[in-house]
Amino acid sequence: MSKLLDDVVRELSRLPGIGRRTALRLAMHILRQREDDVASMTQAIDDFRTGIRHCARCNNLSDNEFCEICSDPNRDHSTICVVEQVGDVMSIEKTGQFRGLYHVLGGVISPMSGIAPSDLKIDLLINNIAAGGVHEIILAISTTVEGETTLFYILNRLKQFNDLKITTIARGIGFGDEIEYADELTISHALLNRREVEPPAGV
Amino acid sequence: MSKLLDDVVRELSRLPGIGRRTALRLAMHILRQREDDVASMTQAIDDFRTGIRHCARCNNLSDNEFCEICSDPNRDHSTICVVEQVGDVMSIEKTGQFRGLYHVLGGVISPMSGIAPSDLKIDLLINNIAAGGVHEIILAISTTVEGETTLFYILNRLKQFNDLKITTIARGIGFGDEIEYADELTISHALLNRREVEPPAGV
Repeated sequence: MSKLLDDVVRELSRLPGIGRRTALRLAMHILRQREDDVASMTQAIDDFRTGIRHCARCNNLSDNEFCEICSDPNRDHSTICVVEQVGDVMSIEKTGQFRGLYHVLGGVISPMSGIAPSDLKIDLLINNIAAGGVHEIILAISTTVEGETTLFYILNRLKQFNDLKITTIARGIGFGDEIEYADELTISHALLNRREVEPPAGV
Repeated sequence: MSKLLDDVVRELSRLPGIGRRTALRLAMHILRQREDDVASMTQAIDDFRTGIRHCARCNNLSDNEFCEICSDPNRDHSTICVVEQVGDVMSIEKTGQFRGLYHVLGGVISPMSGIAPSDLKIDLLINNIAAGGVHEIILAISTTVEGETTLFYILNRLKQFNDLKITTIARGIGFGDEIEYADELTISHALLNRREVEPPAGV
């Protein structure tokens, strides 16, 4: 067997969700690409691994000490949206609906997986709020058991701040989701938080 | 958004079967690995892309002019197993049942995809046989329309060689496969090529 092929298949199959067969398929794909295209991919991976940092304020991934969002004077620094992970920031940013800052916890409290509150960036969040200037905390955390535990823990830590508005994102039936297949809790929430509909104007 | 993260996600999502979401998950995984583990992965990819060659005899992937199999004096150089692609060599090698050489066509004839016989390494195969010393050609090609076309084309080209034994791999119900779900052609072949069962010895 070719050692070069063997090495690349072994290395690629270490990635999550990639078995030997997929690794081989990726290797064959890589073989068909131009050499400098492959080099720019591996360079991007190396640069990412060695260069990326966590924003000293919000724990989001960042190229510098503070991330682009925290460094942006046009963002609303008085509103912080607390999320579990970096991917959540990307998803919310894509909507273009939120102009405040984020705070990336880096996971959720999970005694089963040995993740304690001290493993998350909760102290950093508390310190940021204690420094002043924050008026609202939006908790955008999953409604899993671990997520709810984390939510509860953070709510407890936030009790010390008077005049701090604390909100969670709305729960309901997602656009395109069928009510028939939604779970009971989601349907209950969607009913409880129902909104009055305005009749179409001008008819 | 972090440029480093953006770059790595964009590059990874160029790989087949990897969308933005998977690319992000891979990036997060890479972030959790040790720097030198990531470097050894990217090094393996670069070395593979720049260093890999095709064996001058059998077209299998190779680190040198001739692959390890073709260079092995202990292999049976009189038997050549013709396969579509590199992955097939790996699959057959894993069985440890075949001690001959291979010949990798590099695909199958497919007018729909614009793959002509001249795009495959068929001339190389004919030349190798013409050079002498080959007694058997095993055609291990898929039973797809394209595979059968390729098989037919090769059989025609092989007609010029007298005393050359030409075989194809057996078709039948795979181990662990249920007869109920096998297609008609496979069942027909399995019936036609039935084998006599020896009664257990010593009873």
